[in-house]
Amino acid sequence: MTTTDQLNDSMRNGVDTATLFATLDAVKQAPEAAKFQFRAHNEWVSGTHNRGTIADFFGVGEERSHERTFIFDADHPAVLVGQDQGPTPAEFLLHALAACLTSGLANIAAARRVKLTEVRSTVTGDIDLNGILGLDAGVRNGYEQITVRFTVKGDAPAEKLREIVEQSRARSAVFDVITNGVPVTIDVDTT
Amino acid sequence: MTTTDQLNDSMRNGVDTATLFATLDAVKQAPEAAKFQFRAHNEWVSGTHNRGTIADFFGVGEERSHERTFIFDADHPAVLVGQDQGPTPAEFLLHALAACLTSGLANIAAARRVKLTEVRSTVTGDIDLNGILGLDAGVRNGYEQITVRFTVKGDAPAEKLREIVEQSRARSAVFDVITNGVPVTIDVDTT
Repeated sequence: MTTTDQLNDSMRNGVDTATLFATLDAVKQAPEAAKFQFRAHNEWVSGTHNRGTIADFFGVGEERSHERTFIFDADHPAVLVGQDQGPTPAEFLLHALAACLTSGLANIAAARRVKLTEVRSTVTGDIDLNGILGLDAGVRNGYEQITVRFTVKGDAPAEKLREIVEQSRARSAVFDVITNGVPVTIDVDTT
Repeated sequence: MTTTDQLNDSMRNGVDTATLFATLDAVKQAPEAAKFQFRAHNEWVSGTHNRGTIADFFGVGEERSHERTFIFDADHPAVLVGQDQGPTPAEFLLHALAACLTSGLANIAAARRVKLTEVRSTVTGDIDLNGILGLDAGVRNGYEQITVRFTVKGDAPAEKLREIVEQSRARSAVFDVITNGVPVTIDVDTT
């Protein structure tokens, strides 16, 4: 694709592909710019109800903020002895996975000059709570399996749409973490 | 703890410990009740902006719904060629981890007769976007490491508060998934 092509056809799927490619070029020149730190803050409210705040992050060499502060309550439903003031934490995890695959999908389709008309997904996670309840040492705490079901429509053959989903999977940060795991350190201050 | 003690001292940290223990007893009698399926639905909006919906789940032998439908937008910030209509998916993952550890912490403290006065946390995730940008095959897509920093205060010695955090970690569904990974299947319908 030439620069002229990009300028003539820069917006696709709501993705500014000219800026996307320019960002890729900029990072190629300065790989340190790609070192990000994302953050979530959380404050306990009562029982299983707590409130998360997402606002600040580090990237492209400096401290940054989202344009507004995002606040999300989490809780357990009544059947799990909560007040249902928000989704369970484990549901937020599924949401993160669907969102990551979908964001990538739109970018990749735009880069491949495919116009998407519809992308929907449902992510399901099967979990046996005998694990976290401590009632069966043979049951893990987390999901036993997660399934993502996509409906994808656009101006490309089915095979090409499937390849775009596959590339999104192959380049998804959340998919990588959820399938491969990542080390987590927990520090506690009681002062 | 006797049943009388429980009734006299049932609410602690906003946790109904009598109901919590009754739920544990009920699951001991009927382990199948603990088989849950959580779900997240997602619809692409434009570019990296998409919208998640959390409403329905399966548990205790039947289809259930949250008391209301929770809707969460996700997007990339401008520096990552998005419109910043919501947090990035990778930030929702950190929120899920903080929320899961905090929900568990309140339950465990209540069960151990510890009154909490403050629980705050910040979760940070370090990520090198050269991975997802496809610019360095030696860099993974997801977080390289995640750190959780808790501040926990309550009517117990520091050592006991630390033990409660440790037990929360040991029984966290999201911590398990994020540190150990889980198989994810992706199906695509293009019809």
